[in-house]
Amino acid sequence: MHDKSQLTQLTLTALPDIPFVQPGDEIARLIIAGLESAGLTLQTNDILIITSKLISKAERRYVDLSTVTPSERARAVAEIVYKDPRLVELILRESTAISRMRRNVLIVRHRLGFTLANAGIDHSNVGMKSGEWVLLLPEDPDRSACQIRADINRLVGVSPGIVITDSHGRPFRLGTVGFAIGVAGLPALRDWRGQPDLFGNRLEVTVTGFGDELAAAAGLLSGQADEGLPVVLARGLTFPAQDGQAADLVRPIELDLFGDFHKTEHESS
Amino acid sequence: MHDKSQLTQLTLTALPDIPFVQPGDEIARLIIAGLESAGLTLQTNDILIITSKLISKAERRYVDLSTVTPSERARAVAEIVYKDPRLVELILRESTAISRMRRNVLIVRHRLGFTLANAGIDHSNVGMKSGEWVLLLPEDPDRSACQIRADINRLVGVSPGIVITDSHGRPFRLGTVGFAIGVAGLPALRDWRGQPDLFGNRLEVTVTGFGDELAAAAGLLSGQADEGLPVVLARGLTFPAQDGQAADLVRPIELDLFGDFHKTEHESS
Repeated sequence: MHDKSQLTQLTLTALPDIPFVQPGDEIARLIIAGLESAGLTLQTNDILIITSKLISKAERRYVDLSTVTPSERARAVAEIVYKDPRLVELILRESTAISRMRRNVLIVRHRLGFTLANAGIDHSNVGMKSGEWVLLLPEDPDRSACQIRADINRLVGVSPGIVITDSHGRPFRLGTVGFAIGVAGLPALRDWRGQPDLFGNRLEVTVTGFGDELAAAAGLLSGQADEGLPVVLARGLTFPAQDGQAADLVRPIELDLFGDFHKTEHESS
Repeated sequence: MHDKSQLTQLTLTALPDIPFVQPGDEIARLIIAGLESAGLTLQTNDILIITSKLISKAERRYVDLSTVTPSERARAVAEIVYKDPRLVELILRESTAISRMRRNVLIVRHRLGFTLANAGIDHSNVGMKSGEWVLLLPEDPDRSACQIRADINRLVGVSPGIVITDSHGRPFRLGTVGFAIGVAGLPALRDWRGQPDLFGNRLEVTVTGFGDELAAAAGLLSGQADEGLPVVLARGLTFPAQDGQAADLVRPIELDLFGDFHKTEHESS
């Protein structure tokens, strides 16, 4: 029998007691408090996987739809997709191109580079008491990830890897999964090139989406229905000391075979 | 402080000592031996996540390219994609439609429904001593998953969830991640509809790709370079007793906005 401590093992722990975040809250302090409450102390190579909604709320990325005046372009798109023209206006403002539009579907290239439905704008779990509030993605999730990493280091002297996640639908597949939209302190992509396979042949598949694998794994715990578990600690992985960013995971348009992006008027004007 | 046993926690353990599988080996016996070697006993709600290559090898899905005669259609496609016409012939035989083809790229709809490059046919880690061998995906991975689950139950009296995985590239994103291509004993999709969010609003994102989340999570451990870790035990999740299949994760063609599938001659003839 093997010594169990020698097993290759990854433990994902959802932090308890992360309160409903208020605009401007310092995320790092909430996370440290959650770790302490769970009796956990950060270690080298720990990774914290955080849902983007927590970041968006702290960054005050709320918009009241009643304050939004849709452009002519937004009205035209809204007629095609059967969505609220004010919401469509926000989606177009957050995007550089439309990939697909039809009834109930508006898939865009977000200004951050990600291709996703509705520019990631969220209606659910917004938690505002009145008005027609929606929540945009964080302003710059890679920057937010760096900031949280630096804040945690300042507070406890350890710099964990950080992944900020959002759940997206996918071409060809049903069901949403988590994707990395912000990364700090770890490689977003892992490059295995140069490593022969077990039989000495060159590996065919040589770059893995490490950030996205982490985001998908954390989704197993956080689920869609449980906004109370927005932070997951991943412990047990080794990875190269690279400071990647989620932008590394975005396939450049010139290498994209599926987007067929059409510029939004917002961008082309 | 919380009782640590109350934490929501998922542990992923790569099983050691899974030998290089020989054609016809019974996968269930290899897995039970690996669990025993690790000092692990299967429990209710355990999930075993297995790379498809292990299954393909046990199912003797090897093909020697020198035995393949490419069709005229395969030759024509091979000229466009700059690949070996014999390999293209195999890819077309395994597929129902071509989605994208250009230099170095041949993305197809596999006969099992999955959209992926080269029909999942693998050159690396095939492990044959001579000849130009490649390895096809398992014949019917959902069926293989059911069989392994039944075999394990017969051997040790517990029926774990089973996920058979393959690493694929993705539209819009760089880096490969694991996808579920075979499932038994768990829901491939988790349906959260009817569950209100924390503020009583209807959830917008209501179906998650549970099988794919598990496949991506296991990829964190198995990696591309380490064929020695083809089985991962996932412990700690609760899930509904549903007997899903990986086919549930395939977006039906009539709901697909990105594939633009063109039938292969193989299928349309």
